[in-house]
Amino acid sequence: MMKTLQVALDERSYPIYIGDNLLSQPDLLTQHIRGKEVLIVTNETVAPLYLQKVLDRLTAYRCEAVVLPDGEEFKNLTVLNQIFDKTLSSQFSRSVTLIALGGGVIGDMTGFAAACYQRGVPFIQIPTTLLSQVDSSVGGKTAVNHALGKNMIGAFYQPQCVIADTSTLNTLDDRQLSSGLAEVIKYGLINDMEFFVWLEQNMSALRNRDQTVLAEAIERSCRDKADIVAQDEREQGVRALLNLGHTFGHAIETGMGYGTVLHGEGVAIGMVMAAELSFSMGWIAESDCTRIKEILVAAGLPISPPKELTTEQFMSLMSVDKKVQNGKIRLILLKAIGQAVISDDYSADKLAELWA
Amino acid sequence: MMKTLQVALDERSYPIYIGDNLLSQPDLLTQHIRGKEVLIVTNETVAPLYLQKVLDRLTAYRCEAVVLPDGEEFKNLTVLNQIFDKTLSSQFSRSVTLIALGGGVIGDMTGFAAACYQRGVPFIQIPTTLLSQVDSSVGGKTAVNHALGKNMIGAFYQPQCVIADTSTLNTLDDRQLSSGLAEVIKYGLINDMEFFVWLEQNMSALRNRDQTVLAEAIERSCRDKADIVAQDEREQGVRALLNLGHTFGHAIETGMGYGTVLHGEGVAIGMVMAAELSFSMGWIAESDCTRIKEILVAAGLPISPPKELTTEQFMSLMSVDKKVQNGKIRLILLKAIGQAVISDDYSADKLAELWA
Repeated sequence: MMKTLQVALDERSYPIYIGDNLLSQPDLLTQHIRGKEVLIVTNETVAPLYLQKVLDRLTAYRCEAVVLPDGEEFKNLTVLNQIFDKTLSSQFSRSVTLIALGGGVIGDMTGFAAACYQRGVPFIQIPTTLLSQVDSSVGGKTAVNHALGKNMIGAFYQPQCVIADTSTLNTLDDRQLSSGLAEVIKYGLINDMEFFVWLEQNMSALRNRDQTVLAEAIERSCRDKADIVAQDEREQGVRALLNLGHTFGHAIETGMGYGTVLHGEGVAIGMVMAAELSFSMGWIAESDCTRIKEILVAAGLPISPPKELTTEQFMSLMSVDKKVQNGKIRLILLKAIGQAVISDDYSADKLAELWA
Repeated sequence: MMKTLQVALDERSYPIYIGDNLLSQPDLLTQHIRGKEVLIVTNETVAPLYLQKVLDRLTAYRCEAVVLPDGEEFKNLTVLNQIFDKTLSSQFSRSVTLIALGGGVIGDMTGFAAACYQRGVPFIQIPTTLLSQVDSSVGGKTAVNHALGKNMIGAFYQPQCVIADTSTLNTLDDRQLSSGLAEVIKYGLINDMEFFVWLEQNMSALRNRDQTVLAEAIERSCRDKADIVAQDEREQGVRALLNLGHTFGHAIETGMGYGTVLHGEGVAIGMVMAAELSFSMGWIAESDCTRIKEILVAAGLPISPPKELTTEQFMSLMSVDKKVQNGKIRLILLKAIGQAVISDDYSADKLAELWA
């Protein structure tokens, strides 16, 4: 069973395919490859599981693979250069297609490499984690990290298509699955109360990897995200809502050292902080905060900031966020569950207090 | 005296200002800066000469400068990261403007850094070499080199404006001036026979840095280039003509080690090779080849390939060029002086023979 969603971005529009065993379908992938050259970018964890499966689809192409180390701590310019080492030593031309086979780190790096190689070549996303299937593979944000800030070096660059094969989630470890659920819950909080309630009801089925329920959650998440991206591709306005929990989360990820706290874990803690700040402003009820914490705990996620980071470190890390405008951090806060807003109308003292 | 040219690229259109003492004009630069944050990127050679002059214009801004080592051998991802170190340690936001103050290397790196920092911030070109004033600062090609190929990692990204202050050429050394003249001569060869003849007549005035003659040559070069870029911003077709001599030249630059042969020197040798290949195809006369060699020699440029590179090395380096299509290198060749064409209709044996 396969569902197809279209991300509507004029001449950069592309389909997202969602379903089980999609990697075994003969032409799904190849119909989106224009030239005769392909580079698969994957990592040490995913390669033994799925690389051969993808290679089997590509026997008619001149195809190479580059296997990167696994983890957020490798999402940097130095490891990015290993992709260019491979494209150039393989003498791949401007008509090469890059394929990202892996999670969010692989997708972000491959997309950015595709944006830059010879000033732009096509690429395809094959996300193999829940997080990348519901979030990072959709919307064209690509980037690598800098020691001083997450996702600070990157490009807006859309793929030719996204192939989200839900069967690949069977090999995902529990902590990674939970990390992905943080982004799923995020869509409910932003603008989809109905979805939030559905998630409360279906959380154990999701954690038990019920394929039908997972496919439903992925489709709904992708649709919610695609709707927002179609309105605001380059994040001039409404797209910033998708960063609910992320400014806090990025600060935590960067401060703790990339890879220590998973992205979704940072986002979960960040969403709790956003909720508590919203509560302290009188925008939402204490019961809303409780409900948010409960669904995150049910999803197997942390809800308290790590004690290792001081308030000072945290505040300094927050201030290099991409959403800083005129020296003030704009945060995504909540007017209700299912109603996020962009705001700089909060007190910095309260923010610091919250951390402490 | 100042001339203004407009590069017509819809919402990415921008002006090129050409004239003497433009760095002393009070508002020319600042009218193109939108935010309150500025990072000047320059190098060790240019900083002592012009950095203070630019800083004097920017007292109303939060302004920082990063001074990179000087030379093509530093145009890589590692040195690029020094720019990000500075933007991030200065906590510059998405509304920072980057200013490239220097030659082609500084312009290419700053433009690429601007394209990538927080997925895109504005930048301004202040080219201080003849080469960057007539070529690399115009048209939005930005890039860094990879050990295996020149300009292989980059983006198409247009500046807010270009300020070509011809007074800065007074401090340029003779070899760098000649390197720039190679690109000037290139425009004559591509599609401007009248300009080629004018250059033959004015070469000694140019080498003596007659300001009026230099400004005339820069304006004509920029206009010729801007016309082509406006037709084909992303090099799907006609823009490839601007690479006359460059496929050969890049192979020489890469093979000899970046910085050994200057860019314009590589292009000069490459244009002679393109002319000789065109002659061997019966497209141009031997007298045309002679005339091309004579003007390059008059400009102080080399016309013979370096003996250090073997034919095999050269052919291998040529084959990673961005203009490779279906395994065949497309070259820019000449049907006449002032009439360049894109062609893969040549014999690879003749190319190898030419090198030998």
